[in-house]
Amino acid sequence: MADPAIDDFYAVIPAGGIGSRLWPLSRADAPKFLHDLTGSGQTLLRDTWDRLAPLSGEGRIAVVTGRAHRAAVERELPGVPDHNVFLESEPRDSSAAIGLAAAILVRREPDVIIGSFAADHVIRQTRQFEFAVRQAVAVAREGYICTIGIQPSEASVGFGYIKQAGELIVDGAPEAYMVERFVEKPDLDTAKQYFEDRAYLWNAGMFITRADVLLAELAVNEPELHAALLELAEAWDDRDRRGPAVDRLWPSLKKIAIDYSVAEPAAEKGRLAVIPGHFDWDDVGDFASLSKLNSHGRNELAILGEGARVLADASSGIVVTQTKRVISLIGVRDIVVVDTPDALLVTTAENAQRVKGVVDALKLTGRGDVL
Amino acid sequence: MADPAIDDFYAVIPAGGIGSRLWPLSRADAPKFLHDLTGSGQTLLRDTWDRLAPLSGEGRIAVVTGRAHRAAVERELPGVPDHNVFLESEPRDSSAAIGLAAAILVRREPDVIIGSFAADHVIRQTRQFEFAVRQAVAVAREGYICTIGIQPSEASVGFGYIKQAGELIVDGAPEAYMVERFVEKPDLDTAKQYFEDRAYLWNAGMFITRADVLLAELAVNEPELHAALLELAEAWDDRDRRGPAVDRLWPSLKKIAIDYSVAEPAAEKGRLAVIPGHFDWDDVGDFASLSKLNSHGRNELAILGEGARVLADASSGIVVTQTKRVISLIGVRDIVVVDTPDALLVTTAENAQRVKGVVDALKLTGRGDVL
Repeated sequence: MADPAIDDFYAVIPAGGIGSRLWPLSRADAPKFLHDLTGSGQTLLRDTWDRLAPLSGEGRIAVVTGRAHRAAVERELPGVPDHNVFLESEPRDSSAAIGLAAAILVRREPDVIIGSFAADHVIRQTRQFEFAVRQAVAVAREGYICTIGIQPSEASVGFGYIKQAGELIVDGAPEAYMVERFVEKPDLDTAKQYFEDRAYLWNAGMFITRADVLLAELAVNEPELHAALLELAEAWDDRDRRGPAVDRLWPSLKKIAIDYSVAEPAAEKGRLAVIPGHFDWDDVGDFASLSKLNSHGRNELAILGEGARVLADASSGIVVTQTKRVISLIGVRDIVVVDTPDALLVTTAENAQRVKGVVDALKLTGRGDVL
Repeated sequence: MADPAIDDFYAVIPAGGIGSRLWPLSRADAPKFLHDLTGSGQTLLRDTWDRLAPLSGEGRIAVVTGRAHRAAVERELPGVPDHNVFLESEPRDSSAAIGLAAAILVRREPDVIIGSFAADHVIRQTRQFEFAVRQAVAVAREGYICTIGIQPSEASVGFGYIKQAGELIVDGAPEAYMVERFVEKPDLDTAKQYFEDRAYLWNAGMFITRADVLLAELAVNEPELHAALLELAEAWDDRDRRGPAVDRLWPSLKKIAIDYSVAEPAAEKGRLAVIPGHFDWDDVGDFASLSKLNSHGRNELAILGEGARVLADASSGIVVTQTKRVISLIGVRDIVVVDTPDALLVTTAENAQRVKGVVDALKLTGRGDVL
């Protein structure tokens, strides 16, 4: 029998980012978390929900998302109670999104432990993921902010790193460590060193903490943001006051990642812990990552898209299609073809990180209609 | 003032081939000759017509094409008289197509000189082309079959070659030579030798000859085909008899290129002459050729398609689009992207000759709807 849900735990899913590096698949009106990028038959958001529900219970998952995505989120997650969908009027980065959830939930339940998990990541071994989260909750109960780090599988320059320090002895968390520091995305040489040194883990943006502990840390480091979030939370559960409060306060909130406003300062003070996660994790950051995630070998062609009609000869990489067109590839290696009704992208895995530049260029040249 | 049309000359345009190596642009219902492949604003067929009209007069250009293309041909060529459109019930190669035209025209005008020119080639310097044809007509008037050869610009393995022999002295044809022999498409080493040796010219499929001389040659080499063509021609100008004659005789005609049925045997007998053409010629045989034809430099990206919305970064090759989709290329070199409403091709210039294989595979796998 599976373990029961954790009584004092609330899962928070910030569902905000568009995923510009996955254009033209990801769009303003069809962000990354609303796509099936693994061929699972459901969206990444739904996969995330399904992964968290056994830990928190369905009624205790909050989603922080843009007003524009409300309908799509409710369609994907029919089990989400109305009072657990927190709508942003515009994206203000992760401190605002997670801080708002913490401020609202702590009013409902003062001792609540929250865990924030991105809506658009892919995790393969759910059992190991659950085990890591249960350990992190045990650590958080002791007043630490706990993150889950990912054992690197290569010397990646695409992620931030968490350097683990000594063991942290907490009941129910046999793999807990203290965190020495957070490290920004490194250059390749540094990444290679980190990969050799087993003490560096990938930062997957997972934070598990008592809501009040997170807010206290935020109060010290970003007092204005903290004050505004408390004011918002105070008005939140009053239908008449919520909308006006969001309109007034939200657009002026400081845009800052929670890594900087909470995690790094906490690490410096010895209040940040980490559980090394023993599961496959991918942030599906670009088409190179998507290609790797969906193909079984280096020389294979991955195909994503219902009813895809692809005819390939001596080709590898990935084809993503939202149309029923016949797509023929001949002699193209590590290719990336993304075929949508109004936009087509052709690039290579090597150039996957440059897709964001195209999105910027389309904006600048007045072709925002396809963004 | 331009030279007047040539009194005893009739131009013949066989408009038959689909151009499978240009799929998905070229289709059964939209063959190569019905496309604008140069950005000229009109189809290759119309370009061909415009090139020939000053030589023969508009009323003296015959088009041999499939029944399925009749409406398109008449739309492209509003000046073509109904009695100059010769409809095939199915393609039976060039001996049948040109032989039919010769047999029909010789009945109307016993001394007529015909010149056959493919409907889907590109020629840049019209003045030099005209000069070559006028010389070829002068040679044909003397009873020779005359071809126009193209001075090779590279050691191509994609064309047949014509080996010129000694000078042929004919009034009005200062550049006429005898032809020693016809050569099939060579391997690369042989092509390099031919390129060094200035006596080898590309065979561009242009034949200028008295109709009766061509038919006499055909009578010797392919007597059955010749007899069937005479029978067809005899019935042709009688509306009631034409259709039944075509239905009865056409499907059984031998499929043979006019190079084999007429030109090669004529060369052996010392009856084939050649005028070296001093103009740029391209048969636009595949997308590599199309790419070269439309780009100004090696590292450029050529774009074909009205209202094309292409955003390219560090890319070269060619994009052909029939849709209004935004097409973004990043870091792809010598790429070939062909974007049509129901089919998409992504390959490279190097693989351009393999496109025909895809067409065959689509047929075999039941996806002929996009051919």
